[in-house]
Amino acid sequence: MTKPVNGFSKLTKTEKIGWLAENYLNSDKKAVNILKQYWNEDEKLQKLHDEFIENTVSNFYLPLGLAPNFLINGNYHVLPMVIEESSVVAAASKSAKFWSERGGFTATVINQKKIGQVHFLFKGDFSKLESLFKNIEPKLRESVQPITKNMEKRGGGILEIDLVDKTQELENYYQLFVKFDTRDSMGANFINSCLEKFAEVLQQEASNAENFNEQEKDLQIIMSILSNYVPECIVRAEVSCPVNELSEDKNMTGEQFAEKFIQAVKIAEIEPYRAVTHNKGVMNGIDAVVLATGNDFRAVEAGIHAYASRNGKYSSLTHAEVTHGIFRFWMEIPLALGTVGGLTSLHPLVKLALDILQRPSAEELMEITTVAGLAQNFAALRSLITTGIQQGHMKMHLMNILNQIQATELEKEEMVAYFTHHTITHSSVIEQLEKMRS
Amino acid sequence: MTKPVNGFSKLTKTEKIGWLAENYLNSDKKAVNILKQYWNEDEKLQKLHDEFIENTVSNFYLPLGLAPNFLINGNYHVLPMVIEESSVVAAASKSAKFWSERGGFTATVINQKKIGQVHFLFKGDFSKLESLFKNIEPKLRESVQPITKNMEKRGGGILEIDLVDKTQELENYYQLFVKFDTRDSMGANFINSCLEKFAEVLQQEASNAENFNEQEKDLQIIMSILSNYVPECIVRAEVSCPVNELSEDKNMTGEQFAEKFIQAVKIAEIEPYRAVTHNKGVMNGIDAVVLATGNDFRAVEAGIHAYASRNGKYSSLTHAEVTHGIFRFWMEIPLALGTVGGLTSLHPLVKLALDILQRPSAEELMEITTVAGLAQNFAALRSLITTGIQQGHMKMHLMNILNQIQATELEKEEMVAYFTHHTITHSSVIEQLEKMRS
Repeated sequence: MTKPVNGFSKLTKTEKIGWLAENYLNSDKKAVNILKQYWNEDEKLQKLHDEFIENTVSNFYLPLGLAPNFLINGNYHVLPMVIEESSVVAAASKSAKFWSERGGFTATVINQKKIGQVHFLFKGDFSKLESLFKNIEPKLRESVQPITKNMEKRGGGILEIDLVDKTQELENYYQLFVKFDTRDSMGANFINSCLEKFAEVLQQEASNAENFNEQEKDLQIIMSILSNYVPECIVRAEVSCPVNELSEDKNMTGEQFAEKFIQAVKIAEIEPYRAVTHNKGVMNGIDAVVLATGNDFRAVEAGIHAYASRNGKYSSLTHAEVTHGIFRFWMEIPLALGTVGGLTSLHPLVKLALDILQRPSAEELMEITTVAGLAQNFAALRSLITTGIQQGHMKMHLMNILNQIQATELEKEEMVAYFTHHTITHSSVIEQLEKMRS
Repeated sequence: MTKPVNGFSKLTKTEKIGWLAENYLNSDKKAVNILKQYWNEDEKLQKLHDEFIENTVSNFYLPLGLAPNFLINGNYHVLPMVIEESSVVAAASKSAKFWSERGGFTATVINQKKIGQVHFLFKGDFSKLESLFKNIEPKLRESVQPITKNMEKRGGGILEIDLVDKTQELENYYQLFVKFDTRDSMGANFINSCLEKFAEVLQQEASNAENFNEQEKDLQIIMSILSNYVPECIVRAEVSCPVNELSEDKNMTGEQFAEKFIQAVKIAEIEPYRAVTHNKGVMNGIDAVVLATGNDFRAVEAGIHAYASRNGKYSSLTHAEVTHGIFRFWMEIPLALGTVGGLTSLHPLVKLALDILQRPSAEELMEITTVAGLAQNFAALRSLITTGIQQGHMKMHLMNILNQIQATELEKEEMVAYFTHHTITHSSVIEQLEKMRS
């Protein structure tokens, strides 16, 4: 390909694939068949999935797994988890079982305010801007009535509109800083629509303000957009039990386990290199539920990691302590999820995932999701401070290699036995299999 | 469900689904059929996907879309993108086309060192520990020979092992800080296996060290694990063009566009609420390619967001400037991706995605992925500072609602025309459709 293609989006799916094969796949029919092999035979269902995004050519499979035994606020849940990484669902399930026998998880939504901003430049007298803002605030609210009407019926809407002076950080820069309650929806479209309307009204009112000079009338909107940083949308999840009930390992007392576990958490609190991986483990659990329930994991990731750095140094999301013989492990994270709107009513497996979770409210889903993150981190730390993470990983790795080289079931068994006591590398596995076959 | 289930992982897939239906879905056969509807009819292929993780019950579809016209370092690419969010692929394609007509993207891998740590506690004389470390360094390297042999053949391996004193931050806390070159593989298993071996040798050597007292001999390994924070694994992507070629909008000159665009970037540089959403947009592009190529988006997300906060305040990943009439927009991010190992050789669509990208090396894939992030951010900012983000979004939103309520093709056309000039909300759409149908 040496020049751009025109009108690609207008091609039919089959034409797009034809163009792809011709230009990037040496017209290989096998490659085309791989794409088609993943189409659903139900054409209507396939069309639904094709229309979620643009230029769709196939369905990318991610495994949907189940992690049972999550006792959360007194109810048992089975978590639908969508993730490509092995060990995550197994670890979640193990952690859930362990804590179900020790009172389970408690989780609470502490707050649920979402935030959006109109970013604008204003050159002039701040006090004039301030009094304009006070005057037009009712007008701003009124202007979005067609958008907020239904949200208000559901108990949500616009909570606060503030004018924020940011000129100390950037010349002439101000914000309308708006807080929203979007109930069970993520509310992105709702928030952005309100903000764009506010921007329009603000600019108009400024240009018509009688006491504004020409420069002041020329208020410039830069952009209007929700924030994925939601530090007023906080969820807390926690587990606790007496220290002596903590260890299932004969070689370790509960006290020893607690001590080592807390050290591992402290290391993640002070050392960013470790904190990143530590929190990545938390996100393995969170994202898997976020994906299964049709929410946006990029938004969740960005907000949570920014929160992890809120004190000036990137740090652990989870914390642990022992007081009066009780071990406690907890996490507070910002999280904004929806159970209505978006993919939740479109993707049949998302609808089913919400059914599996017993049709939770957004708050309940946020609690469950936070628990999944905490459970995951507990499982990861437990492996790390006891057997090490590789024991489990390498067994999965071995199975993957064996599948890849199409070992028979009998060969698999023999290989697993052999590699209990030998180092697993791609070449050592292939070597051993060849030996076995010869 | 009032008590935990035992041995769930041992059940067959059908038994798992049976248990799920009975306990969480009122034995609803329709629900079970939804899960089965997503199975691939090719049993062998389905088994392959089932084995990627544990307790798999179905395949979660994410759309695989194509974004053509990415001119990167002089070559045209079409990017396979896996993402559930509408507008992302369209935005990427638009951005790619725009820049293909202005010299395209340049991208470079600046560095490619990966990091792992053995975290341990040592109570005693640091100088003794230091000299032990110096003595045993060759032994450490030798101990991992079975693991590193093949990596070394490919030109990679262990680069440096350092002993780091962290006791100022946490009592008795030290690290082996190890740098690796893992070539085209992500190398997680390789790194973790090496680290666990190092930990074993270190502990053994300490307990046998003749000049160590009892406390010193009792060196305690807390954990051994790679870091997903890779600030020595940096990729840079950039676009530039004369300012006057920048605007495609009749109502805006290139200079006006550049000025507003740079303001929008500056806001994201100083304001964390905006930076989070700004960077989330970058990640829309990055994750879509990361997923399509079988890499681990949680690792990528964690590393990049931590990097965004490295100066003490969470900030924009991208930057923009005009110098001597040239507009420049760029990004540097830490990124560690693999093109061999893991899912890359197992998932047929991942293999195909890599074929579509012309079998890139890990470095090339890192360049392409970084470009996808930069392109996405450009598209998002361009929308935000010109038409606003809702115009495009709401059209997609409208189509989603229309699909959901099963509007006919003719109805869709009429509704799109009507809602060009009316506010789109879920209820206004349904109301209008009902009016139209009555």
